[in-house]
This record gives sequence, structure tokens and C-alpha cells, in this order.
Amino acid sequence: MTSAPIDAGTSYTRKPSTHIAALTEVGRGKPMGELLRRYWHPIGLVGDAGATPKAVRVLGEDLILFRDGRGKAGLVEAHCCHRGTTLYYGRVEERGIRCCYHGWLFDTQGHCLEQPCEPENGLKRDRVRQPWYPVQELYGLIFAYMGPPEKKPVLPRYECLERLEPDEMVEADDSSIGSGGGTIVPCNWLQHYENIPDAFHVPILHGAFSGVQFVAQMGIMPKVKWEYSPIGVKTISARVLDDGRVHYRVTEAALPTLRVVPNPRVERYVGVESLGWTLPIDDTHFRIYVAGRVNAKGDLGRKRSRMNGKLWDELTPEEHQQFPGDWEAQVGQGPIACHSDEHLATSDQGVVMLRRMLQRQLEAVAAGGDPAGVSFDPATPPVVFEAGNYIMQRNDAKAVELLDA
Amino acid sequence: MTSAPIDAGTSYTRKPSTHIAALTEVGRGKPMGELLRRYWHPIGLVGDAGATPKAVRVLGEDLILFRDGRGKAGLVEAHCCHRGTTLYYGRVEERGIRCCYHGWLFDTQGHCLEQPCEPENGLKRDRVRQPWYPVQELYGLIFAYMGPPEKKPVLPRYECLERLEPDEMVEADDSSIGSGGGTIVPCNWLQHYENIPDAFHVPILHGAFSGVQFVAQMGIMPKVKWEYSPIGVKTISARVLDDGRVHYRVTEAALPTLRVVPNPRVERYVGVESLGWTLPIDDTHFRIYVAGRVNAKGDLGRKRSRMNGKLWDELTPEEHQQFPGDWEAQVGQGPIACHSDEHLATSDQGVVMLRRMLQRQLEAVAAGGDPAGVSFDPATPPVVFEAGNYIMQRNDAKAVELLDA
Amino acid sequence: MTSAPIDAGTSYTRKPSTHIAALTEVGRGKPMGELLRRYWHPIGLVGDAGATPKAVRVLGEDLILFRDGRGKAGLVEAHCCHRGTTLYYGRVEERGIRCCYHGWLFDTQGHCLEQPCEPENGLKRDRVRQPWYPVQELYGLIFAYMGPPEKKPVLPRYECLERLEPDEMVEADDSSIGSGGGTIVPCNWLQHYENIPDAFHVPILHGAFSGVQFVAQMGIMPKVKWEYSPIGVKTISARVLDDGRVHYRVTEAALPTLRVVPNPRVERYVGVESLGWTLPIDDTHFRIYVAGRVNAKGDLGRKRSRMNGKLWDELTPEEHQQFPGDWEAQVGQGPIACHSDEHLATSDQGVVMLRRMLQRQLEAVAAGGDPAGVSFDPATPPVVFEAGNYIMQRNDAKAVELLDA
Repeated sequence: MTSAPIDAGTSYTRKPSTHIAALTEVGRGKPMGELLRRYWHPIGLVGDAGATPKAVRVLGEDLILFRDGRGKAGLVEAHCCHRGTTLYYGRVEERGIRCCYHGWLFDTQGHCLEQPCEPENGLKRDRVRQPWYPVQELYGLIFAYMGPPEKKPVLPRYECLERLEPDEMVEADDSSIGSGGGTIVPCNWLQHYENIPDAFHVPILHGAFSGVQFVAQMGIMPKVKWEYSPIGVKTISARVLDDGRVHYRVTEAALPTLRVVPNPRVERYVGVESLGWTLPIDDTHFRIYVAGRVNAKGDLGRKRSRMNGKLWDELTPEEHQQFPGDWEAQVGQGPIACHSDEHLATSDQGVVMLRRMLQRQLEAVAAGGDPAGVSFDPATPPVVFEAGNYIMQRNDAKAVELLDA
Repeated sequence: MTSAPIDAGTSYTRKPSTHIAALTEVGRGKPMGELLRRYWHPIGLVGDAGATPKAVRVLGEDLILFRDGRGKAGLVEAHCCHRGTTLYYGRVEERGIRCCYHGWLFDTQGHCLEQPCEPENGLKRDRVRQPWYPVQELYGLIFAYMGPPEKKPVLPRYECLERLEPDEMVEADDSSIGSGGGTIVPCNWLQHYENIPDAFHVPILHGAFSGVQFVAQMGIMPKVKWEYSPIGVKTISARVLDDGRVHYRVTEAALPTLRVVPNPRVERYVGVESLGWTLPIDDTHFRIYVAGRVNAKGDLGRKRSRMNGKLWDELTPEEHQQFPGDWEAQVGQGPIACHSDEHLATSDQGVVMLRRMLQRQLEAVAAGGDPAGVSFDPATPPVVFEAGNYIMQRNDAKAVELLDA
Repeated sequence: MTSAPIDAGTSYTRKPSTHIAALTEVGRGKPMGELLRRYWHPIGLVGDAGATPKAVRVLGEDLILFRDGRGKAGLVEAHCCHRGTTLYYGRVEERGIRCCYHGWLFDTQGHCLEQPCEPENGLKRDRVRQPWYPVQELYGLIFAYMGPPEKKPVLPRYECLERLEPDEMVEADDSSIGSGGGTIVPCNWLQHYENIPDAFHVPILHGAFSGVQFVAQMGIMPKVKWEYSPIGVKTISARVLDDGRVHYRVTEAALPTLRVVPNPRVERYVGVESLGWTLPIDDTHFRIYVAGRVNAKGDLGRKRSRMNGKLWDELTPEEHQQFPGDWEAQVGQGPIACHSDEHLATSDQGVVMLRRMLQRQLEAVAAGGDPAGVSFDPATPPVVFEAGNYIMQRNDAKAVELLDA
């Protein structure tokens, strides 16, 4: 009888898996839920608010979006404050939305205007209020503020969506461009948000692994550094091109959930042309709203990635397995990634910095303060991002600093 | 910098939602579960008990209904008391139902008659008993009593189903007529039961909102009063018709779950012609059994509501949203309505009274007594309801009392 | 007024149902989970390990099976130890499997061979290990050991699969032959394992109830006795045939989950020709892998049972109800059978003995010992089973002992 060596590192010795609840869970009262509720979030396209009530789910809350006959958008709790029937079956009228069950009419701020089954249309109707959230429209999107009323900041504007060339317009899109897959993505929002400073997955996942998903030059292994911006984390990568010049790319993950990602197809060397908002639907689903400068309606949609030459929806299960993209990589981390099982390396520095930045905001809120990036001053100028695709000579100071570090 | 007013009444300040468990949850050992188990409930049509075992789910319990070869209906726990295989796969024989796995044979009262794999067919077979429930057949329905054996009341009879005209017959229906939708309704039974004394949803939901779902005169806003009956809550509504006469309508919600609802299509002015039993399948599903006097087989089924001219099954999702009926209003309250979010008004007095009446029964049972409407005397006369559609002159005393109150 | 007798034995008086967790639940850390983890289990066919990662679920754990370019099979935890993306989307290479997200390459023992985004391909890559399990290939199957490394036994061999006639070969099958149904069976594994010593269900379920599912002689009510074997429970049954001879049949349930069941179609009187392993997928699903001696490829698959003349997949819902087989009987016990509701009889002695045998192993492991049937000696000879279909005269000593007991 010989004695076999004892196996090391088997899965039997693995500890139970857990996720970092404080960074991922978005319900009201949860640390991240409260942090995210200090910001405005896009919850629909301008056209989603109309005469037909639309059900939307945001941060784990079920809400109804509509636009009254006077043109004002409203976002209210789904269940009527009277007897709980969903206002999804309500009727939109000149002054608000009316519940189908007993006809109570609410305006966009939840004021009860009519109680038709009550004497004199409701002598005490002022005492009830349909829970509602304030909304504002900008860049083709409807933004909602779901946090403490006394902490409502001004809705930020962004320079990259404000300074348009004569032939440009701003277009909005709700199909989760940038997710790598369909509109509703079945995993935690942080898995996507962390992907933004994860510069190194680009040459692997989008280059070597599944073939060229963007353009060939993005498959070049870059030199990368990360820096904190005032409202997030900047990822700066440099690639030496065949002609000796340097593709200098800056990507930003900005508070609260912003994707500030220059065109990965690098059609021209300019500052970032679109913004994406990673909207947590609940703890295990997210979607992305995008607004961007385009030359023609529909341009944003034309920028979707292809794998094996096909759009994501067109792939067979076998092709999804063979040609994974962002959707497969992120959803493949599970409904909520098990952070306790991770082994982060130097190339994950951007992810680490993003988590630290979020952690600092959680601490600021817990201490009674305001998180970064909120302003209460209507005169606040538009946010300026450094993000973009830039081209420079190899001996440019910036290129030298990064490539020769 | 200007200071915006702080938003009031937003959803952020909402308290966590809860339901009244004591009034809604129907499992064994729960307050309402025990109250409901003091009464007989219909659990199938007479024809459902036959030579093929039928799976039924009632008050959260999975049961098997069959009829032995001698014609006796049996209702037994689904899982065989021997090794737990479901008797759904059993075989119905002359003397009972036989489990497929090892052939134990049980009669309709759960006595074990044969254990074919045991010596002498089971020397100790008298020591086992398949859990069963007593059943009785009446009005085309099979009623079961699922409560404490020593508290089993007599099966009530109802005058409105006993006194037939020469051309009338009693028909039973299991398709949940009155639910506004399909056979199995995915919400708590109380949402439906409370709809009975909710007189004011009729002119809104069934009149103004989705078009005329019954007949035009039901869309007239009524004067309404509520009264306790010995076994429930009566809703009395009066509508002044175009010809000056008064449509005087009495609806009753009676213990345990009875819909005593006159024909909402008001084809004639008579006492109530049918009864419905709101059967809780479990906490989040219910169905309705109906028995009624008809002139021809199938008449009950012809009384289903139409929305936008279509039967509920025929509506598109868009039409369900545009033309909601009882199903949409009640299912739209959620799997179990969040009572903590409600704001009841004077027009909800019937709902309030129904809940109080149920609460009193819970208290009676908790105190060791019997709830209202149970009798242990086989000579108990049939229950008489006041419910009906009646026509009267405007100066009739009853009309005056209600309309001029 | 007459007083009715009070009903006895109704379902109202039933106690809450529970299952024996220690015997059924298979997760890591659970008593049975730990016991099962002391043995090798088949987790795929040899051909399942290939160039395309295959997702397998065993004992509640999600794993990825593959075969590297050198021909070595690997079984690793599904989620990459770097950032958690599933290796289902990985790429199989010469030396191992590479994660799609950042390209970490792992060999079949989880060693990290490359970290392409890290300096020098990962200076600290030796510090990480993808959780893995050792595998071995035998009889056309891939066996995994998922227990404590220091307790890894030798992979057992079985005489019945080793001693082949000249015209015989060993074939493996993964379609859950013996389950009576489809490949993935939606109930706890013990319900199937206990079926093996349950000799008496054969003449009922497979004979009298649904017609002849195997052959007519198996419908004869046998005399049965049970004996402990060193690694399980033997079931010995004798049937007197029409010609006066005796069909003497020995079936064994062997540790850990082995079905040692002679051909129920009794095509010849020989020792057992195939083995089945009841693999727990998780607490509420199992599947069966089979290896057997055959004369031609595909012979195993040709041995599937027919009910009403049809394969299980071909039956209508009505036929499943009318012609139940093992699948219906066992799945019909529920996701996990409610042992507290059982009433075991003398014919269940085999089931009782199997549970006691398992209980003894749980105690042995809890006491720090080794369960029966594990060996650490590579020179351990193949396991010999007594199982088989045998024919003998009525006056044969063995027949006399059993039939005249």
C-alpha cells in the first residue's frame, strides 16, 4: 500500500460565501439604498410618461409613471392609498390619475383631488396623500428623487450633453446599451458599475476571448492607472498603436451610478459623447439609461456590440457560451457576487478604489453629511468629465508618464 | 441661490407595509384559519368526486377527492399515511381508494381496509387511519368540514335555494362567477369578500370607469347604508331611476364566506337567486363556488361580465389595463393587501363593519365559544336572506328613510 | 334533535409534518451531506468532460466539468476565484480552463497558471487556488470526491463490472434508468434509495396496479427477508413459479447510494449485471448514473420500463395518473417525504434497516471514524455482491428456508 499525497485547495475547505450587503443592497433603510436615494436617477424616457400608466420598478419600489393632461409627469407609489389597488389600472386625466376601484383622483404630487363616493367629493380628502416622488425631465429622460425631502439636491447637468455641435442632438435610450445584453439585466447593479474601472477585462473579454467585440486596437493590452475624481474614479489607459502614436483613454465611474465611457469603437478622438446611468431595479436586477450626442435619431442604438457577428439577442445558447461578453461575465457572477470568495489583484485596483469611494460616501451619510456630487445650489455649473478617447505622440508628457512608469 | 420648498408626503416617508394576519391567513392554527374551519365549505362540484382521484387545495391543505364504487364521496389527505405517496395516483375501488405504492386501501373515512403486503392483509391495520374530512352533498356541491370534530355544525340550508318555482332548478358552478376573472384568483380571499359590502365601487369600477359592465342603472350613484345581520353585513342601496321609481338593492356578506349578491344585471326585481362561496385555496389564492336557481342548465355561466364587450379571458393585456373589473381591482391590491397603507373613508363603512364582524368571531372562538351562524341542531330551518333587487315608489317608507337621510 | 357521533381520525388532528433532516439533506456541513462526502460519486459520463465547459450540480454545489488539452478531466467550483464569473463561459485550453473575464488560467487541480492582466502574468498567482475536486474515470463514468482531503478513499471497483464475458462490454448511461421517469427527478434522493429494499412495492406498483411493467412473474407476491451486508442492506425474495421452481432474487442497497438491482425483466438467471448510483443533485433533486455489462452499445437504454405500452415521456397526464410507476410513487411523496406522517409496517423492514444502517454511518462519522465501505488501500479487491436473479428447485435449502419460514 502506498500513501497518496493529500489534496490541497479543494472546494471542501471553502468557507461559506457572502456578499457585501452595505455596497449592494438598495432597499429603503439599507446603507446603499439610502446613499443612492440622495441622488436623482433616470426612471424612464420622457415618452414613457403619458396617458397610459406605466409600471416602473426602481430601488426595489413599485411605482407608476404617468403624465397628466396638462403635460406634467407624475411618479407615484403603485398601490392607491385608499384601498391598495394598483394605479396601473388607473385612468390618466387632465389633473392627475384616478384609481379604478373607487375613483380617487390624485395629482402628480399625490394630492387627493376627488373622492367621488364620499360626501361632497371628500370633505377630508386633504388628509390623505398618495405617496409620490418628485421628477424632472432632462436630456430626454425623466429623473426621480426618492430620498429624504430635505436632502433633495439640484438635478445635475453635464457639459458633455450641453455643448452640442451644430449638427448634433441629444438622444436618450432605455435599452441598456453597455450592458452587453438585454434591457433588464438579472444581477446586482454593482457588478456592472464595477466593470467601468475594470480596464483590464477589455483586452481579454472583448478582445482575446470572444474575438473583436469593439475594434482591434481595444484588444491591445494597455498600461493603466486610476485616480479619484471629485465624484468617482477615473481609469486612464494608454495603448501604443501600430503607427507609434498613443491611444490615451479616460473612463470615469461617477456618483451615483454613472457610466462615463467613451465610445469603445473609437470612431474619433474626442471627449466622451454619452452618459449611462446604471439604475438598480432591485437587489438582483438593473437596467441602463443612456443619453448621448448624436447626429441622427437612432444613432445610439446602432452602437450595440456584436459577438460572433450577431447581436446578443440573436445568439444561440451555445454561442452565448462560446462568445461571452459583458452580460455573461457580470450575470455569471451570480445574482449578487460572492465577495468573500474574491481574490483581487493589482489589476483590480480600480474596483478596489470604487468600493472605497462608495464606502466613504456611506460613512458620510451615516455621519449625517452629504455624499459627494450633490449640490443644493441651482447655479451649480454642469459637471465636466475628463473622459474621452485621445490620440497623442509617444513622447507626449502624459503618455510618457503612464507608459514609462 | 433660491431655496426650494421641501416636498411633503413623498413615498420616502412611508412606513413599512403590513397586512392584518389575523383576518387573512387561513392555515391551520392561524386565527382566521381556525375560524373558517368551524364552518362547512364547498370544495368541489358533485361531479368532481368520481372514479378518478381529484386533487383539491383548500385552506392551504392538499387533499384528494373521490367517490367510492358505492357512491360515497371521500376527501382525504393527499399523502398516504403509510409512506407518503400521493393518493392522486391511487385507484378508486368499490370500498375506497387504494394507494399505488403498496396497495393500502382506505374507505371514505380513512379506515384502512387492506394492507396487501402485510401478513393476513394487515393484522394491525386498524391502528392506522388515513387523515380525512367529512363531506356532505347539497345544491350540486360537495361541502367539507375541516375543523375540530367536536365542533362540527350541521350543514346549513338556504331558503333562496330551497323554494323553487315549477320551472326552476338549482345549478352549481365552479368557474368563480363573480370574481371578474378566471377560476383561480391569485390574491387573498378577504380582498374578494370585502368587495361585497363595498357598494360604492359599483358605479365607479363597473360604471364610470370601464363602461357599463352590468347594466346602465347600476352606474347611478346610490345612497347606501349598512346593517349587521345575524351572520354578516347587509348593504342596502337605493338608486332613483329615470322614471322616478327607486331601485332598492340589498346585498349580504354572510358567514363564513358567502356572497349573497342579487343579479347585478337586474333582470327582474326579486330576492337573491344565487349564492357564492369564496373559498380560500391558501393565503394568496381563492376561488368561488356558486349555486343558483335557474331555468336551464348553463344559465349561471351565461351571467359572466363583459368588459369592452369581451369575456375576461378574451382581453388583451392592454384591454385589461384599460377596462379593469373586479379581478384587476382585487388582484391589483397585491397577493395580500397591505392594510397598514389604507385610508378608509365613510364610504368604506361596510368594509369596516365586515372586519369588525370577523374580529368578533375570532374573539368568540378564542374565548372557547362558537362563531355566529353555526348550529348543531339538525332541525335548524333554512337561512333566510333579505338580499334582492326590489322596485318601489319614491315615497315608499324604506326609500324615504334611505334617500332622505 | 339527535346527536351525531363525533368523527375520529380527521385530518384536523394531524400534527405538523416534518422530515428527517439528518438522513435527507445533502449540503456541506449537514450530517448526511458530510457522510456522502466521504465517498466517490459519479458526476458525469467520461464524454461529458471535454473542450466545452459543462455545468454540473452535485450535493447542492455548482461545479464545472471539463477536460484539458492533455486529456485530464477537471472539476472546479463554478465561480472563478478572482472575481466570481462562472467558468461555464470559460475556455478550455491545453493546460486548463481560462476565465472569460480577465483570463486567469487554472489547471485541473485549481492551480492558477496565468494572470494575463497582472505584471509578469501574476507574481502572486501561486497564492490563489480555484476550488476543485479530485476526479477519477472508471466504467465510462467520471467519479468525484468532494469530502475532506485527508479522508479520500480509494475509488472502489466492483466485480460485476470487472468480470466480462468475451462478448460483453461495460456501458455507462446518464439518463436515470431505474428512476421510472426522466433524467432529473424532482424529489429527495432517499425516496429513491429506500425504494431498493422495498421489495413489496414490486407486485403492487409494477404488477397489480399499472399492469405488467416488467414481466408477469415479478407480479407474484414474494416471500421476503432482509439482511445487512457489510456495506448495506440485502433484500432476498422468493417467488414460486407456475412450473414449481423458485425465482430467488437478491437486491442490494449499498453505500453510499448504490442500486445493485438485478434485471427486473429477468431475461436470464445470473448475478447482477449493472450498478446504479443515486446521485443527490441537491435536497430536492436526484439523478442516476448506471454502468452495466452489455453485448452492444445502447443495450442499457433499451431496458427502460413501459407503462401502458409507452415510455414515460410519451404518457399523457391522464396516463401518468392511471399508470403510475416508480417516478410517480416517489415524486408523489413530495420534494422531501414527511417522515413524521409515516406508518411503517412489517413489509417496510428493509426501509427501516436501510435507515438504521445510514444512521450508524452518521454516528461513525460524528464520532470521528470512517463509514462502512471506504478503504484507503489501493490493493482493495473489487466489491462482490450477492445480488442477482437465480432459479432453484422448491426443495433447495435456500428456498425452503425462506418460503417455509
